Amino acid sequence: MRFHTRKWVKPEDLNPNGTLFGGKLLAWIDEEAALYANIQLENQKIVTKHMTEIDFKSSARQGDIIEIGIDVVRFGKTSLILNCEVRNKMTQETIITVDSITMVNLDEDGKPVPHGKTKIEFVKDRLKNSDK
Amino acid sequence: MRFHTRKWVKPEDLNPNGTLFGGKLLAWIDEEAALYANIQLENQKIVTKHMTEIDFKSSARQGDIIEIGIDVVRFGKTSLILNCEVRNKMTQETIITVDSITMVNLDEDGKPVPHGKTKIEFVKDRLKNSDK
Amino acid sequence: MRFHTRKWVKPEDLNPNGTLFGGKLLAWIDEEAALYANIQLENQKIVTKHMTEIDFKSSARQGDIIEIGIDVVRFGKTSLILNCEVRNKMTQETIITVDSITMVNLDEDGKPVPHGKTKIEFVKDRLKNSDK
Amino acid sequence: MRFHTRKWVKPEDLNPNGTLFGGKLLAWIDEEAALYANIQLENQKIVTKHMTEIDFKSSARQGDIIEIGIDVVRFGKTSLILNCEVRNKMTQETIITVDSITMVNLDEDGKPVPHGKTKIEFVKDRLKNSDK
Amino acid sequence: MRFHTRKWVKPEDLNPNGTLFGGKLLAWIDEEAALYANIQLENQKIVTKHMTEIDFKSSARQGDIIEIGIDVVRFGKTSLILNCEVRNKMTQETIITVDSITMVNLDEDGKPVPHGKTKIEFVKDRLKNSDK
Amino acid sequence: MRFHTRKWVKPEDLNPNGTLFGGKLLAWIDEEAALYANIQLENQKIVTKHMTEIDFKSSARQGDIIEIGIDVVRFGKTSLILNCEVRNKMTQETIITVDSITMVNLDEDGKPVPHGKTKIEFVKDRLKNSDK
Repeated sequence: MRFHTRKWVKPEDLNPNGTLFGGKLLAWIDEEAALYANIQLENQKIVTKHMTEIDFKSSARQGDIIEIGIDVVRFGKTSLILNCEVRNKMTQETIITVDSITMVNLDEDGKPVPHGKTKIEFVKDRLKNSDK
Repeated sequence: MRFHTRKWVKPEDLNPNGTLFGGKLLAWIDEEAALYANIQLENQKIVTKHMTEIDFKSSARQGDIIEIGIDVVRFGKTSLILNCEVRNKMTQETIITVDSITMVNLDEDGKPVPHGKTKIEFVKDRLKNSDK
Repeated sequence: MRFHTRKWVKPEDLNPNGTLFGGKLLAWIDEEAALYANIQLENQKIVTKHMTEIDFKSSARQGDIIEIGIDVVRFGKTSLILNCEVRNKMTQETIITVDSITMVNLDEDGKPVPHGKTKIEFVKDRLKNSDK
Repeated sequence: MRFHTRKWVKPEDLNPNGTLFGGKLLAWIDEEAALYANIQLENQKIVTKHMTEIDFKSSARQGDIIEIGIDVVRFGKTSLILNCEVRNKMTQETIITVDSITMVNLDEDGKPVPHGKTKIEFVKDRLKNSDK
Repeated sequence: MRFHTRKWVKPEDLNPNGTLFGGKLLAWIDEEAALYANIQLENQKIVTKHMTEIDFKSSARQGDIIEIGIDVVRFGKTSLILNCEVRNKMTQETIITVDSITMVNLDEDGKPVPHGKTKIEFVKDRLKNSDK
Repeated sequence: MRFHTRKWVKPEDLNPNGTLFGGKLLAWIDEEAALYANIQLENQKIVTKHMTEIDFKSSARQGDIIEIGIDVVRFGKTSLILNCEVRNKMTQETIITVDSITMVNLDEDGKPVPHGKTKIEFVKDRLKNSDK
């Protein structure tokens, strides 16, 4: 799993218990999943359709740095199934995992449309190939 | 199910597809669940521990009004199990449902602690009783 | 008066005195009034035209839950006159009342236009009637 | 009246009519009044107690620049009474005026306390005097 | 140098050291420079092209009031070169200075275009002249 | 250079020209630099002291994904000198580079203090070593 985006837990991200708000974390995960799908499917019109159950394993406090990892479970025809782990950057303790996040590829009218992708691609390879 | 908090979908709540960002909706749900648990358990130290799978049934667009409904599934010993439905206020079309959201009641040190509650209470009844 | 939207007072809502910023509260009231008018008048093009004087009766602190109640004072021809009370959810102590908030119904060009409404309607009744 | 703070009207400041949200404007006014009182009374513990009626005379659109003017109506014993005008920077058209905003000076415990001020002071004069 | 916009340093503006986040300050400076250029060049299509080095001389804490001053260094053909000082309003201690911020005037297609301005103008003079 | 954090350019990140606000980009860079320094120096008390000149080479539009790369220029005694490149994720076109960002390591009282680090460390290696 590749961990990219890092977030600094700030006062506005805390619940009244002084720990990271669960909903904030879910919003960060959904945004990272959408970014990832956008890059893989080369399409900005992506929506989240489904997430499997979410178990908050540990929490984070103000000033902690967390990092969000995304991996591909499977390429569907119009969908991309991802999984996600969020962990504390400094201790590498897992905060949350989501086994499956289903992103759907849409056309201009917002209808699901096949994306034609079957495996993970790297942007640098795409750019090299487009140079030929 | 009682629907309380209403939200107006604004430009900053949209994904690049022009519909309500899934993660924003999850953040709103988690906040409403935490508010609800706070009121029922009369404790601000509440955290989200678990959510069952999330299926995005329909979406919302800029300017739509949505409302968030929460109900109690069960009172645990240190937990409160809620369910949630978000719907479009004007069409009453369901946007999302979550079957079970587990909120945990914490003590001052952030450890789970029994809350002693077994049924839904209304604040006005509590206030009447406290007048006796 | 019906109380719907609930807000959790967070660090970013506080003034340097550590209590809820008056202006934040006014922004929440205005948004709730606009939402209410939008639902009653079945029109998204609504603007706030006037508010009567505002007296801050008590305050709220971080972690407090407040709820915002709106009621109709009068249906004008192109306007809807509302009143508002904000109270602490847990103590039901009044934080602020506004006697009259005038919302104006606009057409596509942003000009006042008669809305044709004369009494409070409930969305569920509208939907029932539209099924006939 | 001196106009200081300037704001650029952005997408997140708009109502669904595409004009500046009334509540956002009230939040900006309250913050500017609190800043002004803070500077004059040399105390960060200031709260808004009262505003007279608010009449929205014109509006602003995305990309407009507005400026907020504050003046002193009267120094009370524990209060400072201000008035406010917000106008479009480029056309100098008035957007809103508030005749009286009552700010109250608080002590460490949040109780009103005399501030001992009777007239407008400029920071540069205070600093010069403190050099003697 | 004229100091206009004032900001109140709030919890969401702080770094984990409890002082004003450098990046937040840079965002405020850039916005003020863009506002200033917009007013002078009478064009909303303005972008920041370059800033000289930035030296953080002192910091600010929660509750501090800062003010942002902008002055013109030079009118270019398609650009406007500004400088900036941010200081603590109460102590007038300098927080940051930027010697040169280059703003570029764009046409509808986003291309640099001559602005035809050669000196600072005041909006009130423009309005007087347009009355003739 | 390692590129980690990714951002999706949203409506609230745009200037009136419809492109990414320069100041927003600077805020993102500063936060990423502070995160990076925090991880390397194993200290949350880090402040930005200096940035060399900033040249905006290209821009980004709504819906674009950008990624922020940070590298170490030099470990000072109490400082860490970083450089930064922000590029468009999909085209890998450079948006901005900053040659040197000086972060300073502070003690509990906010005074510069030696950090004792001389080279880049990876968290996983630190965790392995701490297992011994």
